[in-house]
Amino acid sequence: MSKIVSVVYHSGYGHTAKVAEAVAAGAKIDGVSVNLLKADALSDADWLALDASHAIIMGAPTYMGGVSAQFKTFADASSKRWFTQAWKDKIAAGFTNSGSYSGDKLSSLQYLQVLAMQHGMIWVGQAEAAPSLADTQIPTHEDINRVGSWVGLMTQANSKAPADIAPPAGDLETARRFGKRIAEVTKRFS
Amino acid sequence: MSKIVSVVYHSGYGHTAKVAEAVAAGAKIDGVSVNLLKADALSDADWLALDASHAIIMGAPTYMGGVSAQFKTFADASSKRWFTQAWKDKIAAGFTNSGSYSGDKLSSLQYLQVLAMQHGMIWVGQAEAAPSLADTQIPTHEDINRVGSWVGLMTQANSKAPADIAPPAGDLETARRFGKRIAEVTKRFS
Amino acid sequence: MSKIVSVVYHSGYGHTAKVAEAVAAGAKIDGVSVNLLKADALSDADWLALDASHAIIMGAPTYMGGVSAQFKTFADASSKRWFTQAWKDKIAAGFTNSGSYSGDKLSSLQYLQVLAMQHGMIWVGQAEAAPSLADTQIPTHEDINRVGSWVGLMTQANSKAPADIAPPAGDLETARRFGKRIAEVTKRFS
Amino acid sequence: MSKIVSVVYHSGYGHTAKVAEAVAAGAKIDGVSVNLLKADALSDADWLALDASHAIIMGAPTYMGGVSAQFKTFADASSKRWFTQAWKDKIAAGFTNSGSYSGDKLSSLQYLQVLAMQHGMIWVGQAEAAPSLADTQIPTHEDINRVGSWVGLMTQANSKAPADIAPPAGDLETARRFGKRIAEVTKRFS
Repeated sequence: MSKIVSVVYHSGYGHTAKVAEAVAAGAKIDGVSVNLLKADALSDADWLALDASHAIIMGAPTYMGGVSAQFKTFADASSKRWFTQAWKDKIAAGFTNSGSYSGDKLSSLQYLQVLAMQHGMIWVGQAEAAPSLADTQIPTHEDINRVGSWVGLMTQANSKAPADIAPPAGDLETARRFGKRIAEVTKRFS
Repeated sequence: MSKIVSVVYHSGYGHTAKVAEAVAAGAKIDGVSVNLLKADALSDADWLALDASHAIIMGAPTYMGGVSAQFKTFADASSKRWFTQAWKDKIAAGFTNSGSYSGDKLSSLQYLQVLAMQHGMIWVGQAEAAPSLADTQIPTHEDINRVGSWVGLMTQANSKAPADIAPPAGDLETARRFGKRIAEVTKRFS
Repeated sequence: MSKIVSVVYHSGYGHTAKVAEAVAAGAKIDGVSVNLLKADALSDADWLALDASHAIIMGAPTYMGGVSAQFKTFADASSKRWFTQAWKDKIAAGFTNSGSYSGDKLSSLQYLQVLAMQHGMIWVGQAEAAPSLADTQIPTHEDINRVGSWVGLMTQANSKAPADIAPPAGDLETARRFGKRIAEVTKRFS
Repeated sequence: MSKIVSVVYHSGYGHTAKVAEAVAAGAKIDGVSVNLLKADALSDADWLALDASHAIIMGAPTYMGGVSAQFKTFADASSKRWFTQAWKDKIAAGFTNSGSYSGDKLSSLQYLQVLAMQHGMIWVGQAEAAPSLADTQIPTHEDINRVGSWVGLMTQANSKAPADIAPPAGDLETARRFGKRIAEVTKRFS
């Protein structure tokens, strides 16, 4: 049977949108169709697309230590699905972007986990290893899982860099692999 | 010198408002003046009142595992103060209400801590002991810190109960003591 | 194909052991065999049993706001498996017990989630609804998910009550359903 | 009146010890004496030194997503002080080191916060700004708060680098400023 993966995200300045596109591109594997949906502009049809999904990947920038208020508005609106546990046993995953390496992004990802658990969903994380560094080595912009995150995908975009150059190539490739992983796990779940 | 404590909160159905009022009442000790402000309806004067405060106590209901979107909108708007670290070294504290005992309220309180830390604030928690229970004893509605929280104040209001009877008397008394504690600590900080 | 579910736990005073037994009993469904293992007394054979498991359910009391040091010693020792990602894509779940309702148990469960994510595991939570309460109603010792937790299973045992009467019957029944859920999800994953 | 600041830490391979020394050096300001104590080798006199301190700064490496088991053993042993709330209203702060930038270090710092709150302590974070980066800029080993943390101090040490070159100079200078900040806040609290 064919599977449906939805990526639902909010992006304030375009950086998170770029990550969302990379996650969606990675999730497009054989036997999987992908929706890319804006959390702050969901039509009734978009909500039905989420209901029909086998996996929902949620993404938001980290603002002031948590997911953006725009994404939280979507999370609160999902209480309508929560009442009937309509999303129970769907696969869930999450990603977030901010201007510094740690930048309290784990706070956002752990919130997305709590949200998914309230919905009775099943959480899949980021499984690529972080760079193993010797001596005074510094991760490059091409490295995979440069930031070092497993609860979900973390990307870092320089705050004074436009979305066409940030987050860097390695973060976007990590995003593609992350999307692929979520799609593959979704296919293994019946 | 006289101190100013502000309580800034969002309440969806009135339960959190009742807690906020109890916290504010508790904070009104000798030498301390108190502001009670609605996070989703702040005037320019209210923002200046926050700027002038020695302590800011933040409160919100826990919706879908985190502070309400209305409160998060306030948190995101506080980034204007964050840029200049205008709230650095102010005392901070937090409270949250939900329908079940745990109810992922720690997720909300830990978020408020992260927010306060980004502002460079100093966090004071709830310091009353939880009931020490024997055998098959169940905490009553009069018990102090009935829910068992220390990061901040947690109250529990039955979801089908109106704000005039929920949260119960013990939670509101815990709220008063919590407000008093924050005010007292604020007075000790020069 | 038959599936193996392991419950690995630490218990200080017997309360968490009782919960672990209930989780294990619940997980014993058709086509699933169950191991019940003590995290602070693992033989080489026990480690191999964990390696051979399709699901690992982790449990510990919450001491001073986090999983017991005895359990953390097990978590740190699991780094040997982490290096080779030997537990990748196994199902993971968690439970914790403490003396008060909230009692910072979410801190322990979120830690177990982080640990599972570092291992590349897939997290399944507790999916029973909490009691929906009217007016001045208080949850009884027979209620399911009395404490209100979804990230994993939370139980509450009165600190002055022996393990034969605490945690109460409803918490143990919640534990059985939790074990059953983890086993069922494990069977659906190929 | 003179103030006492204690730094209590565990270090597995020497990196966290180097950070602890830098924090302690920074805390040695006028009117403040500093203790540097090993959490896994505390004598009775060391415990009394903690009891006599006005501030306790806690540090541990992040192992498998949380503070090391050695540090957790200390945290659990502190329950003896918790029973009498002997550390109530002391200043608390925390730091952690790991091999990657994020590396789930926030999980460790938030745990230390929960621990401090159970003790009724007052939490002070890291207040230096993170580097503000343009275009494709990468933080250097000299940058302050390179990792981007505010809940406490995060340092990053390459996993294949010895403690004499990792964490880098900028992280150690951040550690000194962090120690200084905790000492200064402690002096302002009467």
